[in-house]
Amino acid sequence: MERWTFYTAAGTCALATHIALHEAGATFELVKLDLGAQQQQSADYLAINPKGRVPALRTPQGVLTETPALLAFIAQRFPEAGLAPLDNAFAFARLQEFTSYLASTVHVAHAHKRRGARWADDAAAIEAMRLKVPQTMTACASLLEIQLGAGPWVLGERYSVADAYLFTLTGWMDGDGVDMARFPSLQAHHERMARRPAVQRALAEAES
Amino acid sequence: MERWTFYTAAGTCALATHIALHEAGATFELVKLDLGAQQQQSADYLAINPKGRVPALRTPQGVLTETPALLAFIAQRFPEAGLAPLDNAFAFARLQEFTSYLASTVHVAHAHKRRGARWADDAAAIEAMRLKVPQTMTACASLLEIQLGAGPWVLGERYSVADAYLFTLTGWMDGDGVDMARFPSLQAHHERMARRPAVQRALAEAES
Repeated sequence: MERWTFYTAAGTCALATHIALHEAGATFELVKLDLGAQQQQSADYLAINPKGRVPALRTPQGVLTETPALLAFIAQRFPEAGLAPLDNAFAFARLQEFTSYLASTVHVAHAHKRRGARWADDAAAIEAMRLKVPQTMTACASLLEIQLGAGPWVLGERYSVADAYLFTLTGWMDGDGVDMARFPSLQAHHERMARRPAVQRALAEAES
Repeated sequence: MERWTFYTAAGTCALATHIALHEAGATFELVKLDLGAQQQQSADYLAINPKGRVPALRTPQGVLTETPALLAFIAQRFPEAGLAPLDNAFAFARLQEFTSYLASTVHVAHAHKRRGARWADDAAAIEAMRLKVPQTMTACASLLEIQLGAGPWVLGERYSVADAYLFTLTGWMDGDGVDMARFPSLQAHHERMARRPAVQRALAEAES
């Protein structure tokens, strides 16, 4: 297999792609960045990913970023792993609708807790953003709870890369002030995911 | 062909999907919501799309939302239109990386101008967000200018649904305080897009 290098950092959304790589059985070199030391802004890393963020996946064809794109890419490159409904455009769109919502609404809501400086310079404004995070993340959880329904997976009976992403973001919710007891489907999904070997392996590698 | 209904509103990101539908030669019923009258929050519309946003595409299989998912779906359902590199997982991921960045970073930066109430309750905080939009959108434009390069299209020589999305968001930049003279590739791309019949048709239908 061609050589891949995956760039991650503890406590980030890169966990979703990391899980998907292990679910796929991919072989890759793992590089962990220290965000506390601002390694993602180093000249060496910016040469790899000018966005200065994780995740990034280096392949012989080039470097790929953005979680929804990476999840679909891994599913397509390892079709035998069955990580996405590749033969059904509507079902694939349903998966992508879910991952796109996680990226552009849920992750964005979460980012207003500690990354408010992306969107305002004023300290009081950044604090005002932080204060609203429990409300916005609870609204996201409410919508996700309905969409997940009985599950057991995002797409129903079929496990997919979307589950790795949902697990990653529901893992942030308690810390964001969401009362998870109100969302039993999300809780059960999180626990179901935590028992998967690929999840345990990614967590052990990324968070250690 | 099966019956599709597309829900849009003037001045929104739904324009990207609307353009893609015409590029694909799709047949669909068009429903325009009046955001000024809060039609997107009406009970009738929330029954179609609980998110209370546009775009939404109603198909016999169900309702789809989220621009990146809709763009890939249209490209996959109309392969003869050649709107995405469907036979090359890496090139498809490159397209998706681009649309995901537009959704989760560029559109989000823009939304802080008039939708700050999504992320803070305090009027001064919302004003502080608005003030930073020229800076964040200029940073986005800088990255997009480099990625677009010589073009002529997002994927180089090949036109794709990503171009419809880029056109939609660069159309917001001048109003967001971005000095477009600094970004000649983005400007040339916007003008190139504006000459396409599908773009002119979508604009005429959506903005009239």
